[in-house]
Amino acid sequence: MMRTALTDLLGIDAPLVGFNRSPGVVAEVSRAGGLGVLAATAYTPEELDAQLTWIEEQVGGRPYGVDLLVPGKTAPGDPADLVASLRAQIPDEHVRFVDELLARYDIPAPARPRHESPELIANLDPSGVPALLDVVFAHPVALVANALGTPPPTLVDRAKAAGVLVASLVGKPEHARRQLEAGVDVLVAQGTEAGGHTGTVATMILTPEIVDAAGDVPVLAAGGIASGRQMAAALALGASGVWCGSVWLSSHEDITPDAVKRKFLTATSSDTLRSPARTGKPARQLRSAWHDEWERPGSPSPLPMPLQPMLISDAWSRIDEAAGNGHPGATALESFFIGQVVGGFAELAPAGEITRRIVDDCVARLQELRTLT
Amino acid sequence: MMRTALTDLLGIDAPLVGFNRSPGVVAEVSRAGGLGVLAATAYTPEELDAQLTWIEEQVGGRPYGVDLLVPGKTAPGDPADLVASLRAQIPDEHVRFVDELLARYDIPAPARPRHESPELIANLDPSGVPALLDVVFAHPVALVANALGTPPPTLVDRAKAAGVLVASLVGKPEHARRQLEAGVDVLVAQGTEAGGHTGTVATMILTPEIVDAAGDVPVLAAGGIASGRQMAAALALGASGVWCGSVWLSSHEDITPDAVKRKFLTATSSDTLRSPARTGKPARQLRSAWHDEWERPGSPSPLPMPLQPMLISDAWSRIDEAAGNGHPGATALESFFIGQVVGGFAELAPAGEITRRIVDDCVARLQELRTLT
Repeated sequence: MMRTALTDLLGIDAPLVGFNRSPGVVAEVSRAGGLGVLAATAYTPEELDAQLTWIEEQVGGRPYGVDLLVPGKTAPGDPADLVASLRAQIPDEHVRFVDELLARYDIPAPARPRHESPELIANLDPSGVPALLDVVFAHPVALVANALGTPPPTLVDRAKAAGVLVASLVGKPEHARRQLEAGVDVLVAQGTEAGGHTGTVATMILTPEIVDAAGDVPVLAAGGIASGRQMAAALALGASGVWCGSVWLSSHEDITPDAVKRKFLTATSSDTLRSPARTGKPARQLRSAWHDEWERPGSPSPLPMPLQPMLISDAWSRIDEAAGNGHPGATALESFFIGQVVGGFAELAPAGEITRRIVDDCVARLQELRTLT
Repeated sequence: MMRTALTDLLGIDAPLVGFNRSPGVVAEVSRAGGLGVLAATAYTPEELDAQLTWIEEQVGGRPYGVDLLVPGKTAPGDPADLVASLRAQIPDEHVRFVDELLARYDIPAPARPRHESPELIANLDPSGVPALLDVVFAHPVALVANALGTPPPTLVDRAKAAGVLVASLVGKPEHARRQLEAGVDVLVAQGTEAGGHTGTVATMILTPEIVDAAGDVPVLAAGGIASGRQMAAALALGASGVWCGSVWLSSHEDITPDAVKRKFLTATSSDTLRSPARTGKPARQLRSAWHDEWERPGSPSPLPMPLQPMLISDAWSRIDEAAGNGHPGATALESFFIGQVVGGFAELAPAGEITRRIVDDCVARLQELRTLT
């Protein structure tokens, strides 16, 4: 048992948030005394309803949260036919580059015919947001987070009315001020060492900066936290808790393909990079032959979001499928979003065990610190 | 008073090392209960002897240290005429680029005729090392550090014979293993957020990695540490102390030009970058128009060390001189090595006061952490 502003707000045993797209991870983190938060950016309303119902069956009344992608502005295309109008903006040079890259690595043609990723379409089209929010607020969620940027009033107002906490990720003090004005209840200071979309400022510097900017609003540290020592360090920096993302990719319950997880288990902390070559925005991921190809002199620059993910979505389905079959070229290209903590992955473990290990080791480390003064 | 493996080794009050090229900073850190370490890569033996004698007069028997650049290998030129043979390797394109850049920013010609920086020549020529080591070991230094790479046997053997501790900076666990084999007594885990030459791994991840690799050898955390909260976090990560560099550039005693210090005082934590455009190796520094120019499409790539510093040494003398006179173009270009902690610089303060503030706040933060469990 630990006590911080976050545990008081949520009534949880330990100030640890586990952020993951796998409902199994979310449930296990909440069951182990933390707060599981489902990354729900890829679901239809019906799918999300089913996932949240399943999580509730597992957690026995313990709190959990949801992370949504609620776009503040629409994508730069014709709303009448958004996907086609965006696709028309992709240069032929880029299409040829990706086709040639896949051919050179001998990646097999897709088993199923080419199709637009449903996740991608959902993220481009904000018209589906109200129905998703209806689902979220029909469930007893304790916290909603917004995946990218300042949460819009449509999210904040409904959350306040429902008594649900709103959390938001920030990578700079300037961002914190905007989020506080928008009414967020919890700020997540995400350092550059985190997986996925990150800024350039490290957790060691960003966390106290955001704590100082946040006033009474609790701050969670994110990026670089996968052990009890790192959790204790985050608390020393002034955080009221930690937001862990990457560490769950070393859990059994995580749904990331085995071919990716195997690469994670042998990676070092120097094997990630912050690159726009996957989403069009700088995101930390495992360095692979994919990045070497995009960084080679003469390669085109990655397109802006959402064009880059549209360009490569089909390519990645093919790479993931082939890597799953042990294909050497696909295995060389294979990658996924991950933070620098990947260097500490030694073996896969149950998510509940990972949660308890981090918290127990943090408590032990805090006890050890008492001997220094 | 705090107690760790480092304070036990050195007999100091607080496990804080202050690394700086200004003898005044070094003396004040040691006087305030930490360990001042002089960055002595730019001195002749006579100058170094004078600096160490002066420091000893200030510290009244308290321990201090010295950081040297002892090259493991010689520069890639003709030893008979090293500087000329290296200069011949600098492409004309690069010379023209720098000349054109200075002209475009209207940087005045140097007040004195063009000359080779003595610091540069000293660093290129390893033949002066034995005389420098003679000076160091004739003084009662408590610790010697090696500025770049694994300390060679010539340094380690003399230090062991004299009962002087050897410290070394590492940016990856692999480096730690090499340093431990070389016989270092203290490892400094330097995260990417640090100023100067750094790797890519953040302090939050690197520190526990190096602690685990180091066995009984004490580890200091470097990079991102300029406050008591950050020092407490480093101790939570398992470090036996902290190695602070950037924070002293906000001290009165630091000899960095005022034009640079003024830019530091208004910078944010996002205003640094890790760039080879100054030394030829990736080094964190304040982003300025200098970096914008080198990163512009069509600009030449920076040369490898030591050619890049030879190329630009004279240009930087001119920029520093003109910026000191308030010249707008020079002020736009002006920069120096600094870590992401620069975002926290609010005003200049005495180095002793900075030392006491960090240590006192660390002790207070460690006390506060007792209430969490």
